[in-house]
Amino acid sequence: MEGVAAEAASLAGHLKLGKLIYLYDDNHITLSAATQLTFTEDRAQRFAAYGWHTQSIDDGNNVDAIDRAIRAARQETERPSLILVRTHIGYGSPHKQDTFAAHGSALGEEEVKLTKENLGWPIGPPFLVPEAVEQHCHQVVHRGRQAEAEWNEKFAAYEQQYPELARELRLLIAGELPPGWDANIPQFPADAKGLATRVASGKIMEAISQTLPGLIGGSADLNPSTYTELNDAGNFENSAMAVGDLQGSAAGGWSYAGRNLQFGVREHAMGAILNGLATHGGTIPFGATFLTFSDYMRPPIRLAALMGIQVVYVFTHDSLALGEDGPTHQSVEQVASLRAIPQLLVIRSCDANETAVAWRVAVETRDRPVALVLSRQSVPTLDRKHLASADGLRRGAYILADAPQAKPQLILIATGSEVGLIVAAQQKLQEQQISVRLVSMPSWELFEAQSREYRDSVLPPSVRARLAVEAGVTQGWHRYVGDQGDVIGVDRFGASAPGSVVMREYGFTVEHVCQRALALL
Amino acid sequence: MEGVAAEAASLAGHLKLGKLIYLYDDNHITLSAATQLTFTEDRAQRFAAYGWHTQSIDDGNNVDAIDRAIRAARQETERPSLILVRTHIGYGSPHKQDTFAAHGSALGEEEVKLTKENLGWPIGPPFLVPEAVEQHCHQVVHRGRQAEAEWNEKFAAYEQQYPELARELRLLIAGELPPGWDANIPQFPADAKGLATRVASGKIMEAISQTLPGLIGGSADLNPSTYTELNDAGNFENSAMAVGDLQGSAAGGWSYAGRNLQFGVREHAMGAILNGLATHGGTIPFGATFLTFSDYMRPPIRLAALMGIQVVYVFTHDSLALGEDGPTHQSVEQVASLRAIPQLLVIRSCDANETAVAWRVAVETRDRPVALVLSRQSVPTLDRKHLASADGLRRGAYILADAPQAKPQLILIATGSEVGLIVAAQQKLQEQQISVRLVSMPSWELFEAQSREYRDSVLPPSVRARLAVEAGVTQGWHRYVGDQGDVIGVDRFGASAPGSVVMREYGFTVEHVCQRALALL
Repeated sequence: MEGVAAEAASLAGHLKLGKLIYLYDDNHITLSAATQLTFTEDRAQRFAAYGWHTQSIDDGNNVDAIDRAIRAARQETERPSLILVRTHIGYGSPHKQDTFAAHGSALGEEEVKLTKENLGWPIGPPFLVPEAVEQHCHQVVHRGRQAEAEWNEKFAAYEQQYPELARELRLLIAGELPPGWDANIPQFPADAKGLATRVASGKIMEAISQTLPGLIGGSADLNPSTYTELNDAGNFENSAMAVGDLQGSAAGGWSYAGRNLQFGVREHAMGAILNGLATHGGTIPFGATFLTFSDYMRPPIRLAALMGIQVVYVFTHDSLALGEDGPTHQSVEQVASLRAIPQLLVIRSCDANETAVAWRVAVETRDRPVALVLSRQSVPTLDRKHLASADGLRRGAYILADAPQAKPQLILIATGSEVGLIVAAQQKLQEQQISVRLVSMPSWELFEAQSREYRDSVLPPSVRARLAVEAGVTQGWHRYVGDQGDVIGVDRFGASAPGSVVMREYGFTVEHVCQRALALL
Repeated sequence: MEGVAAEAASLAGHLKLGKLIYLYDDNHITLSAATQLTFTEDRAQRFAAYGWHTQSIDDGNNVDAIDRAIRAARQETERPSLILVRTHIGYGSPHKQDTFAAHGSALGEEEVKLTKENLGWPIGPPFLVPEAVEQHCHQVVHRGRQAEAEWNEKFAAYEQQYPELARELRLLIAGELPPGWDANIPQFPADAKGLATRVASGKIMEAISQTLPGLIGGSADLNPSTYTELNDAGNFENSAMAVGDLQGSAAGGWSYAGRNLQFGVREHAMGAILNGLATHGGTIPFGATFLTFSDYMRPPIRLAALMGIQVVYVFTHDSLALGEDGPTHQSVEQVASLRAIPQLLVIRSCDANETAVAWRVAVETRDRPVALVLSRQSVPTLDRKHLASADGLRRGAYILADAPQAKPQLILIATGSEVGLIVAAQQKLQEQQISVRLVSMPSWELFEAQSREYRDSVLPPSVRARLAVEAGVTQGWHRYVGDQGDVIGVDRFGASAPGSVVMREYGFTVEHVCQRALALL
């Protein structure tokens, strides 16, 4: 019933994933009701419409029939297979079979006893494993060991013949990065006009896609906007479906070796598929969409965080500055709500060079998901000769520039596209003899992982006049600006107008930053 | 492609919504590609599987064919209708037709000119409305006026015959509450054992479902857990589908007059359908699920907030205390991420009587959605003779009990199920001669809407020792506890064990509250 399953099944049919087999436990019962109350569609027909092979089994206790159906499904290599198996929940329980009571609660001691009697099963011991089952399990282990030995033998032969490729595969399986994987990542020269961090991200991906064969992913129908197409890396598609020069195709052909996943408008399935790729191993999966639409894939993002797996989210168009598409598309609360997810690393980089470091962190972080939050609009590439190195991103927050005086009167903190604003504001304030420290704070999570000493060195407890600027809800910022600080944020929805107009009207101007900063002194 | 559309279409087919007509603009192009890249399922067959009537039109410019198809769809009263209409995006544009370039960008002046020439349309004026079209529009207005007049006449006759029912309908359409609608809401007596706020919510809903005929809704397959079934209010189902005594059915029969919506396991569609009901008017729609699964319906929650419409979400099982289902089901970050959504009112009530006030607020709030966050586990029903009235909830936060001394040394703040904890902690601390103020803070949004004076009276700037206790992420709490305060929260995922064990292990004990409170002094 869940939409994510529909998205995934539609895509699996399109991709002709012939190895995929679903066993549908069709017990006619949901958590709270008979399925007849809410779910009377023809499932086999629906899956046939998706391009699936379907089979039905009337009796879920007919193991031979299930075995035959699985064999038939394996024979079918051009289409994924659905096997609908009619079962009975709580099978054999005299009072609970076929009722939702058997879904959420244990049967209870008495009903277990009655069920065993009913099924002709010994009452004790409570967990009886018949010898035949035990033997079967041993056989399964044995079969697995044999299969592993065969694979190892095969791989040894492969290694002999293709030492380079074998080494690459070993690295991928081990989850290790090839030496020099990041050597091609560009250094972006200082540039007042600069470029959007999504564009910088695209250039960085171009540089690492060649050295990281495990990098695989795509966008939910937004490649031209998210800049996440891997050049010449092909399309993950069934080769039989290839059409010359199809709009939206990546260069490099159609095959299952393609590393561009074309998810379609299916954010939720995209998130779930990325989790599957990550848990399979051998890959660094990424998925892209507009930041606002991260809402569509929160459940799989949460699961990635809970499982501690590496998935890279590329969330572009990260604020009001998205512009004309208006408040439905303008992210306001998404950065805060992503930060709320435990173990998820959220990085909102301020320029091209921070974005390069952010990608380094994302690739190196093997045990948790990372969300890269990127701008649609151009942002200046900061002059790192006069400002601190973008490597500071690794510590979550860092002093971008300090007041010439020993102790700053004021700390301006910002993330992402608003860092350019505080840099400009500092200049204006210095003209008024106000000594300002600038802090770029791309990642709360990385900052919180630093020592108290480091954190206090960036945000000294003695400097109370602090202003944070971020084009999103202010939630959570008071922790960093403190009782005597202030936050310029957006605690309401956006508006439809050119991005620069919306940003100005919502107070993201150098003048407004200076004004609010001065009010703190 | 989006899962929410699949969920909704499946449910519409099940419900036999014969009045529903989808016009599917089948232009073979998505934002970034040809649909052939990602979406090759048989859409007509899929919708047929859902129980829809389907028709296909080869030429989207054949207005007569579309008109005939719509007429046929209207004739079909037992099934919703899908009309697949083959169209061409950017129709007539020599360079952009059938390309995704026509999706996201304007054609541009030159291409508009070429398109007009190509279609034999006058180049100027830029917005030409031919006289025939204008006349047609006038006719439409005329037809609408006539229809309205007829309806008014009909309604006047109805009013003559059924004055009581007509009055009720008028109130519903006007969005006004009938006098005495809340008269039956119980007062819950003080009780140390108490009851779960979800159970209290169920009793309150029972009391108001009779007086509020516009109250309509249900859960995503969780009625026995969310306590959101409206007694005897029937099932919103097609009467032809009625089956005697079906598991999960509400009492009161199957018909479109039923007020229990059986959503199935379709949270996202549930959220979207609630928005449809709210914008239609005449209803107070509600939807229920576990708090964690609010993640599945964030996009429609966001839209409800953006549109400023009344939808009531009943989110139960609101913390780690959910217990054995484990971290996938235990909400940790959801309260924070809901609070991040602008204009959404989030209320986490602490006991049965606060829950009653929360429901009052939810029903009275006509211009924004309200999320009621409720506990699975029992919480004490506070003794309001010795503590402040639950009406304080209306102000978001209120002094539940004050120190006997003039000025408290310490403020303990909590929401929901953790309020019981701070009440117990206060007793312990008073024994040590520490004067403690207790603040129940069920809603940040309501509190922020109060005057500075009121807010300072609850949380006086001069009292810096403040401890907030909430079984969720600490994000955002520093705003209320301040630089010298502390927060007991959960900044990681939960764990699988009985709820009381998890809560204890995560520090939600009177002892831990006292210990952290003392450390502030």
